[in-house]
Amino acid sequence: MNGAESLIRSLVGNGVDTCFANPGTSEMHFVSALDRVDGMRCILGLFEGVATGAADGYGRMRDRPAATLLHLGPGLANGLSNLHNASRANSPVVNIVGDHASYHRRYDAPLTSDIEGAARPFSAWVRTSPNANTVAADGAAAVAAAGTPPGRVATLILPADTAWCEVDESNNTTATRPTIVAPERPSEAAIDAAAGILRSGETTAIVLAGPATREHSLELAGKISAATGARLYAQTHSPRITRGAGRVPIGRIPYPIKQAIDLLRDVRNLILIGGKAPVGFFAYPGMPSELFPPGTRVHALARIDQDIPYALEALVDAVGAARAKSPLAPLDLPDRPTGAISPEKLGALIAATLPEDAIVVDESITTGRTFMAASETARPHDWILPTGGAIGFALPVAVGAAVACPERKVICLESDGSGMYMPQSLWTLAREGLNVLTLVFANRKYQILRAEMANVGASNIGPNASALLDLDRPTIDWVALAGSLGVSASRAETMDALSHQIDAGLSTAGPVLIEVVV
Amino acid sequence: MNGAESLIRSLVGNGVDTCFANPGTSEMHFVSALDRVDGMRCILGLFEGVATGAADGYGRMRDRPAATLLHLGPGLANGLSNLHNASRANSPVVNIVGDHASYHRRYDAPLTSDIEGAARPFSAWVRTSPNANTVAADGAAAVAAAGTPPGRVATLILPADTAWCEVDESNNTTATRPTIVAPERPSEAAIDAAAGILRSGETTAIVLAGPATREHSLELAGKISAATGARLYAQTHSPRITRGAGRVPIGRIPYPIKQAIDLLRDVRNLILIGGKAPVGFFAYPGMPSELFPPGTRVHALARIDQDIPYALEALVDAVGAARAKSPLAPLDLPDRPTGAISPEKLGALIAATLPEDAIVVDESITTGRTFMAASETARPHDWILPTGGAIGFALPVAVGAAVACPERKVICLESDGSGMYMPQSLWTLAREGLNVLTLVFANRKYQILRAEMANVGASNIGPNASALLDLDRPTIDWVALAGSLGVSASRAETMDALSHQIDAGLSTAGPVLIEVVV
Repeated sequence: MNGAESLIRSLVGNGVDTCFANPGTSEMHFVSALDRVDGMRCILGLFEGVATGAADGYGRMRDRPAATLLHLGPGLANGLSNLHNASRANSPVVNIVGDHASYHRRYDAPLTSDIEGAARPFSAWVRTSPNANTVAADGAAAVAAAGTPPGRVATLILPADTAWCEVDESNNTTATRPTIVAPERPSEAAIDAAAGILRSGETTAIVLAGPATREHSLELAGKISAATGARLYAQTHSPRITRGAGRVPIGRIPYPIKQAIDLLRDVRNLILIGGKAPVGFFAYPGMPSELFPPGTRVHALARIDQDIPYALEALVDAVGAARAKSPLAPLDLPDRPTGAISPEKLGALIAATLPEDAIVVDESITTGRTFMAASETARPHDWILPTGGAIGFALPVAVGAAVACPERKVICLESDGSGMYMPQSLWTLAREGLNVLTLVFANRKYQILRAEMANVGASNIGPNASALLDLDRPTIDWVALAGSLGVSASRAETMDALSHQIDAGLSTAGPVLIEVVV
Repeated sequence: MNGAESLIRSLVGNGVDTCFANPGTSEMHFVSALDRVDGMRCILGLFEGVATGAADGYGRMRDRPAATLLHLGPGLANGLSNLHNASRANSPVVNIVGDHASYHRRYDAPLTSDIEGAARPFSAWVRTSPNANTVAADGAAAVAAAGTPPGRVATLILPADTAWCEVDESNNTTATRPTIVAPERPSEAAIDAAAGILRSGETTAIVLAGPATREHSLELAGKISAATGARLYAQTHSPRITRGAGRVPIGRIPYPIKQAIDLLRDVRNLILIGGKAPVGFFAYPGMPSELFPPGTRVHALARIDQDIPYALEALVDAVGAARAKSPLAPLDLPDRPTGAISPEKLGALIAATLPEDAIVVDESITTGRTFMAASETARPHDWILPTGGAIGFALPVAVGAAVACPERKVICLESDGSGMYMPQSLWTLAREGLNVLTLVFANRKYQILRAEMANVGASNIGPNASALLDLDRPTIDWVALAGSLGVSASRAETMDALSHQIDAGLSTAGPVLIEVVV
């Protein structure tokens, strides 16, 4: 058995059964080994960002890692922006990068680069395996690192000779099964302090992040809110929120900084569960970085790496909310709007048509500002947002979410500007027949940047600025683009047409794309 | 005047007149300033790799830098693989990356990352400007760093407040014009040693890299070869070779390692001008890393950062070759092949149809192995290759080459696998009406990897390997893909059809794409 096979056996043995890959020459032994070990599904992305984004989406939905397989420094580089989002989502990802054979590195062949250096800004764990005997144990360590709560990007770099050399059988570590250490509990003092704040009668907001926006945690938070009057907020970009009918509805800190500051203007206490104190997504001249008023008491009840369900259970007990009734969203579907397309009508139509247990991957940006509020009483679903702000995340993450949950419909809400970062994802959707309905909201500009120019006080838009903000000249034909990569597509220019096309898309098992001209 | 405007004035004042950009919120003041300063052409890429690759192509053709404008760490990340190629090509690039306002970084907002850390593996020079007063001088320093021979990637990181704050006029550095230090000359001893080798009568190969593959240097090398019998080789992937009728033809060290070793088997001396001793692009089990026989004397006459034309002139004198006649390629165009498509016929057709002064950007990989040899006697042209091995370079580099040389026809020889890494380039070709004829050789597989599996001794191709190496299921429709992004396209399935379509493409001023089914 060579190192490559020992790696695949180690990954499979540690519960990794999916690999999103774009391999090259230095990874060919891993590719070959995939056919000698049962239990690994291999999915090709035509660009590395598809692979890393898919691993992010898979991790968000499964709470355990998929692997990637990338080709040296440039292959890793192409996957880094989606690893940034995965890092910020605390998604578990085993990011495997091939390198030149260890003895070949010193010759500085053209593809040589500092792979560890490139990986480090976007990985919580980085290791280069020194030889074939260490590969299996290092693979197991990478799975453990990725799966250590709250989830991390673990990058394992494998020189080609670690793959092709034979493993010394007396030293075989493919059966290594590291134990993941359970997250620590927040201290009694932290829980008591939170309870004291909630009993103070002062206006208090609880900011829920990471695992705190999943169904069970939200139910606990709902009890606390019902018992104490505390407001519940998700961060602007949560990795995944369980929501819709029967779930505890929570607010979301808005992206536009003035709206965010207004929302928190009267808050005297912030209790943080799993996240940091809310700050502006960007800095704006003359505006504060912190979104809450000066003098607000900020109490971190539980860090993202602590036991968040426990923290909420303990707080429920501490404030005597065990018998409080969580305010659950009713099922209340809006009528389907007709006529001309508007963002508000789109929100209502999405809410009306979301199927039970849908997974919504949302990069609808300016068009979609109202979509979450509109779908609060839709059928139960999960909502996924771009945690790290790296653009182009939705299509790749939709790939991974659909692979992770083949029985659920994925609704990918994409923008034309953002969608053009990783359009290669469409090909993987088609190849794997993934159950994804993509709506591309085509406003034919970087609308968010037109607004942001005004927000930062740079309001004159001359010919150069226009050239950098507008996406017409030429218009992108999303129907042809999707078709060229094997995805059935149509175009909607009215709500009525869109309504019909969504129905058709939802009743199709494979991928469908609708270009929504807004 | 704010920092952003001072930057643009500094760049324009230092001769940078083109900016390939994909900006975001943190760069909006730079975008705004572009309309307050004359002399900067702004070109939007829908993905950052388009911008960095275009800057590479521009730098290769102009020998002076264009600027980029990228959005924080993830935007930089998306541009890194093409910066790797640019670094390996020694292309001058001023790579500008926005960051959060300096006071905002400590809040660790979602888009925060270690930008310097991400830039360093792919940049020779990295600096973060601390405030608005330093921006102009730092911009000038970046231009100087990029333009210092042989050319470098210089990354300048600009926190948003360095852009929007006013410059203290008493401290205005926009007129800073750093002097670029001329490259040093190789020592007399190095020249004498090279001359001694050439006079020894032993089999000697001269490996020409960097500026040594441009017309004047090649003429000098041709004299040396004519006078001494030394063989001339370009590295496997040169940044730019001046060639065709009237130019000195040189061999190229082949990519396939066995062919490369065979080529150099009888060589006793290697003289390196501008490059390193030839090594395998990858390591292969049981094969050496060095492509030349053990015991070969390797003499580095001139490093890439030294004065290469001087080195060649001095060597011409030292070996008494001043009156030797360089062997120039004749103009000898093959007949246009007809019938079924084959790689050899494609090479002949390209040679027959290359227009005078064409710029060929070649990522044709397996299909194109014979294209360079076939075009040795074509009309005079430049040939550009992927220096760093990062895939997807050809379309973005073609964008930059066409912007740099609007009066010349760019022929982009692309593969279907490689072309799918940065297809967004097609949109920029269309928007700017660039004079680029792209041939996409569609073999519908990663053919190189099928060969490489055998080369590394991993020869069994099972279902998982097939899934990772084949690009059918679904077939990519390049005609529809190009059309969706505004580029006229057609498909050729015979040499006759391709011949007609190339004629039509060459007579069109704007971008045209032909999918060549091979």
